[in-house]
Amino acid sequence: MEINLTSDTVTKPSPEMLQFMLRAKVGDDVFNQDPTVIELQNSVANLFGKEAALFFPSGTMANQTAIKLHTQPGDQLICDKWSHVYLYESGGAAFHSGVTCATIDGSRGMIKAVQIAERITNPAAFYEPRTSLVCIENTTNKGGGACYDIEELKRIKTLCDKNGLKMHLDGARLWNALVAKRQHPKVFGELFDTISVCLSKGLGAPVGSLLIGDRETIQRAVRIRKMMGGGMRQIGYLAAAGIYALQHNVSRLEEDHVRAKEIGALLAQLYWVDEVEPVETNIVIFSLKPKYEAQYIMEKLKSNNIYISELGKNKLRIVTHLDYRQVMHSYVIERLKRIDM
Amino acid sequence: MEINLTSDTVTKPSPEMLQFMLRAKVGDDVFNQDPTVIELQNSVANLFGKEAALFFPSGTMANQTAIKLHTQPGDQLICDKWSHVYLYESGGAAFHSGVTCATIDGSRGMIKAVQIAERITNPAAFYEPRTSLVCIENTTNKGGGACYDIEELKRIKTLCDKNGLKMHLDGARLWNALVAKRQHPKVFGELFDTISVCLSKGLGAPVGSLLIGDRETIQRAVRIRKMMGGGMRQIGYLAAAGIYALQHNVSRLEEDHVRAKEIGALLAQLYWVDEVEPVETNIVIFSLKPKYEAQYIMEKLKSNNIYISELGKNKLRIVTHLDYRQVMHSYVIERLKRIDM
Amino acid sequence: MEINLTSDTVTKPSPEMLQFMLRAKVGDDVFNQDPTVIELQNSVANLFGKEAALFFPSGTMANQTAIKLHTQPGDQLICDKWSHVYLYESGGAAFHSGVTCATIDGSRGMIKAVQIAERITNPAAFYEPRTSLVCIENTTNKGGGACYDIEELKRIKTLCDKNGLKMHLDGARLWNALVAKRQHPKVFGELFDTISVCLSKGLGAPVGSLLIGDRETIQRAVRIRKMMGGGMRQIGYLAAAGIYALQHNVSRLEEDHVRAKEIGALLAQLYWVDEVEPVETNIVIFSLKPKYEAQYIMEKLKSNNIYISELGKNKLRIVTHLDYRQVMHSYVIERLKRIDM
Amino acid sequence: MEINLTSDTVTKPSPEMLQFMLRAKVGDDVFNQDPTVIELQNSVANLFGKEAALFFPSGTMANQTAIKLHTQPGDQLICDKWSHVYLYESGGAAFHSGVTCATIDGSRGMIKAVQIAERITNPAAFYEPRTSLVCIENTTNKGGGACYDIEELKRIKTLCDKNGLKMHLDGARLWNALVAKRQHPKVFGELFDTISVCLSKGLGAPVGSLLIGDRETIQRAVRIRKMMGGGMRQIGYLAAAGIYALQHNVSRLEEDHVRAKEIGALLAQLYWVDEVEPVETNIVIFSLKPKYEAQYIMEKLKSNNIYISELGKNKLRIVTHLDYRQVMHSYVIERLKRIDM
Repeated sequence: MEINLTSDTVTKPSPEMLQFMLRAKVGDDVFNQDPTVIELQNSVANLFGKEAALFFPSGTMANQTAIKLHTQPGDQLICDKWSHVYLYESGGAAFHSGVTCATIDGSRGMIKAVQIAERITNPAAFYEPRTSLVCIENTTNKGGGACYDIEELKRIKTLCDKNGLKMHLDGARLWNALVAKRQHPKVFGELFDTISVCLSKGLGAPVGSLLIGDRETIQRAVRIRKMMGGGMRQIGYLAAAGIYALQHNVSRLEEDHVRAKEIGALLAQLYWVDEVEPVETNIVIFSLKPKYEAQYIMEKLKSNNIYISELGKNKLRIVTHLDYRQVMHSYVIERLKRIDM
Repeated sequence: MEINLTSDTVTKPSPEMLQFMLRAKVGDDVFNQDPTVIELQNSVANLFGKEAALFFPSGTMANQTAIKLHTQPGDQLICDKWSHVYLYESGGAAFHSGVTCATIDGSRGMIKAVQIAERITNPAAFYEPRTSLVCIENTTNKGGGACYDIEELKRIKTLCDKNGLKMHLDGARLWNALVAKRQHPKVFGELFDTISVCLSKGLGAPVGSLLIGDRETIQRAVRIRKMMGGGMRQIGYLAAAGIYALQHNVSRLEEDHVRAKEIGALLAQLYWVDEVEPVETNIVIFSLKPKYEAQYIMEKLKSNNIYISELGKNKLRIVTHLDYRQVMHSYVIERLKRIDM
Repeated sequence: MEINLTSDTVTKPSPEMLQFMLRAKVGDDVFNQDPTVIELQNSVANLFGKEAALFFPSGTMANQTAIKLHTQPGDQLICDKWSHVYLYESGGAAFHSGVTCATIDGSRGMIKAVQIAERITNPAAFYEPRTSLVCIENTTNKGGGACYDIEELKRIKTLCDKNGLKMHLDGARLWNALVAKRQHPKVFGELFDTISVCLSKGLGAPVGSLLIGDRETIQRAVRIRKMMGGGMRQIGYLAAAGIYALQHNVSRLEEDHVRAKEIGALLAQLYWVDEVEPVETNIVIFSLKPKYEAQYIMEKLKSNNIYISELGKNKLRIVTHLDYRQVMHSYVIERLKRIDM
Repeated sequence: MEINLTSDTVTKPSPEMLQFMLRAKVGDDVFNQDPTVIELQNSVANLFGKEAALFFPSGTMANQTAIKLHTQPGDQLICDKWSHVYLYESGGAAFHSGVTCATIDGSRGMIKAVQIAERITNPAAFYEPRTSLVCIENTTNKGGGACYDIEELKRIKTLCDKNGLKMHLDGARLWNALVAKRQHPKVFGELFDTISVCLSKGLGAPVGSLLIGDRETIQRAVRIRKMMGGGMRQIGYLAAAGIYALQHNVSRLEEDHVRAKEIGALLAQLYWVDEVEPVETNIVIFSLKPKYEAQYIMEKLKSNNIYISELGKNKLRIVTHLDYRQVMHSYVIERLKRIDM
């Protein structure tokens, strides 16, 4: 039994999800004729109180399409220095959209309105890139699953409205925030121009993300998706997995959070652990005391069939998810206690 | 019973294909850990005698990645004026790669070495775009399923080698050419630097294309695919459909060709048809005599549950495919005979 | 005495122009503080009945800025297959603007409204590049100095207005058309959204072009010019040359036209000349009878210190200009008569 | 008498420089036929011990061309957070080259090898932008004319060589560093792949920068310059100003430095000044004590015909230059002493 805690992207469809996929009605989605895709898109749009949504083969494409929708070549977007859109999308903002990233030294991947205000360029300064977009990530990936305070997001919204900036939410793990903070999706729908959400992380579907926005914006997104090569044919099988996941796998994210917090609490007591970052959702980031080595810990766990990730600088990461069941959890807890440095 | 002859992209997986998909072993293909995707990629690469292949969510992304691989921003590619890469990929060559298309007025979508030679710019002429790529489409889509003569392709290859140009084959319907002309895939593998093939047209899989090339090129393609947003997670379900299709649905393309030819032969005898273009594979393009209207024909067929496409300028198109069975064919033949202008 | 008839770009400032340049008041034009540049810009804008104009280091930058102003990445512009913007600006439309060129097989570099209408894509067809711009060149360079009929331009304008397309005029040699056809610049100002004009061809200034448009468009052009690297400092010396040229060197273009026509008339009578294209302005293009070689003619003239250009396919080009005086003309006429094949 | 200390870009050619410009031999530089441009290019290349140099209309275009030369779309360059290439070139790195800027929080605009090392991405991580270039600015503009330590640059060079990164030097004010630190240009020629230098700041020429590199690189730069619209015609007049400036205006930069230091020393003693940054060359940056306002100081000086710049956050900037003579300096010193808060 391999226990993979490197990421929540490793989950595989359950037999029930697979059966549901198999029975999907499909059509050619390039021409918007796949009924299952349409159903998924409509239900996600409704959930967030937005007019429309569009299925994408990946969160990267959904995010990069959003950046393209809200900017002109030569513009600047503002984001945290640890943002996925900045660090882990192959330089796409510059590649696809000709956009410069003004990065902020935020806290656990979260940025504040006052910090954003300092980076908004003067629109009359033609020698500076023009600021047109703020990108927020919630929960933060590299920030360890941290969740934004809604009040701070409202301050950012006020600032953006005042300066004519658009707001995009990279919600790859937004489901975790909604469950952890007991927030309603419509609150986010009201704050952001576009939101990307992922079906293949905590929700356990094999593939797919959606971009959510108003009708005109999503209409324009269809063209960009086609340009990017994200127009697919009978994709209803994948959309069906998403429908199933939304019905069955959202509220259970709470279990992942509980287990992550239990792991975090345990780690805080172990003599070889230096510091455990606050655990808010399903990600645990911790650092080792200087005399212990990340590589050693990873090897030790691997010899027990437990896989976790290294973040560099003696930091390690554990991510809980749908395929990490209680029996595995008990085993991991027990093994962690026994690691002998 | 609706008979859709508008395109071969409308096919849906058979129950057998679906069962095969359901049983696929999957993994996270973003990190090259999906065994079914790997199996498909290897078997397609082998088929063409190339080192490697890569799965893509669409033929557009496979083609656009190829263009990016072989060019620098500011370069020029040469293709037929009817090419899919030029007309129907949302202007992607310019958008993604900053590449200008030098289009040739070919014959049924096919271009000749002598025509290409005239469009190769002088590398020393810094005020002209530099020519770096020739794109060939086989069979041709807008050209009515026409198949290239291998001798002409060899002449083009010689020209390209002499001028340091790369060659990409848009093989969205290459399977049809291989079957119709009884050619071996390795012949194309030897001629082209990269080849894209499609699983969701004649082969009947729901989604997916592959880009085929040497190892170094496909290695670079992984980065571009990620940038484009084509890195997907547990995509083995779609790859399994491709494996099934390659095993079961290639040689049967011959049936599609026979039916297309029978339709073509019939049309040539009808008094309201002006001209039927040569039928080489599964596409029939025909024009109406001036006094008859395309719209009328389409409506008439639609009232019989038969759907075909209009190409403009009084031309119509019929495409045969996997889901167009013999019983439907007999019905279509009979209805076509009876259309009363 | 070298007689260079290869292009009208070879002209050098006269002593009077140089003295005028020397006395220019200058300032930092990056911040719009060069009074001579401002004077030139205002006077050219007024001449064309437009609100504003902007100085550029080259016609290429002025044209490419116009393309960027009127398009979005992924769009398509329509132009003649011989256009300077398509052939001789290093693939800039794709490089800077991500724009595809839909080229028309025009007549002597000129295109018609009916031809343009066929290339306008359907805005709803998200898989096609969206058409947003038509580029016209007047006089045509590769078309041999041909001048557009104003009535045809009006038909194009009507078509563009109906389809929401912008119109840009590459007026590198517009001064020649204005003089040859006795047209007023304001007629062009009314027809086009932007016009580029050149100071360094027929007008004889050393460097510089202007882009002319409405205030908002030119305001946006300032940012693009800066981005392109066209923001220069004390550039008033070059602007002064333009002011001088506009005052002294426009109406005299008639002389260049007369000499070009005389050369054309002579060539038409020579036994080794096959065909002389109509001479409307200062460019003469002619072809040789099959048994004579372009290289031989060029060498023969070179040995008489006369330099002309080869266009390929046994065609040759002669361009008259400011530095081609009457004494040179008499000499050239005499030498041409005596060439012995 | 207006005393403009806002920037060294405000200098105007002296009568002697203008006479020298007037006598320049010129030709069509688009085709490399302007002898004065060639002379300037060769002499600057020699000065830095490099094979070739190319004239540009602006430093922005020279820098952006360098970025394009050394990167691929999707790559990342590393620079200080205050770099001109990042802040003040209209987002050009992303616009022209599709390149992401990884910015470092340096010291007075200068970055260290150890800081760079942390930002170099793993070439195998296809989801991260690939690092290909380090950009250094010397002297630093926003850093207040600070000069790099050669030993640090050597450490950076070693790091770059090890990681296959190119190095570009934005030497807009490199002349100041060379004079201030008594360094030889060849030291920089050995360290950097490309160097841009400016003729229109401290050197007092009206327009122009050069990009310096090896022959193959500069050959490629010709194409990019043309694409950018920087190919100009009879530009020898501007090149002549550069030749004159290099002969007469380099060593005298020492005077600007002395005056800047005198101003800095004086400011340090004034009761309303909080802190004066170290003055190494011709730029003085100082902050005001909290109770005094930048606006007030600027107005006060303006009423004495002295113009300086505000940098935000209660910081002010003074730049000395060729047109700031001793008599003005005495006057400025005296007025500064007398400012009454």
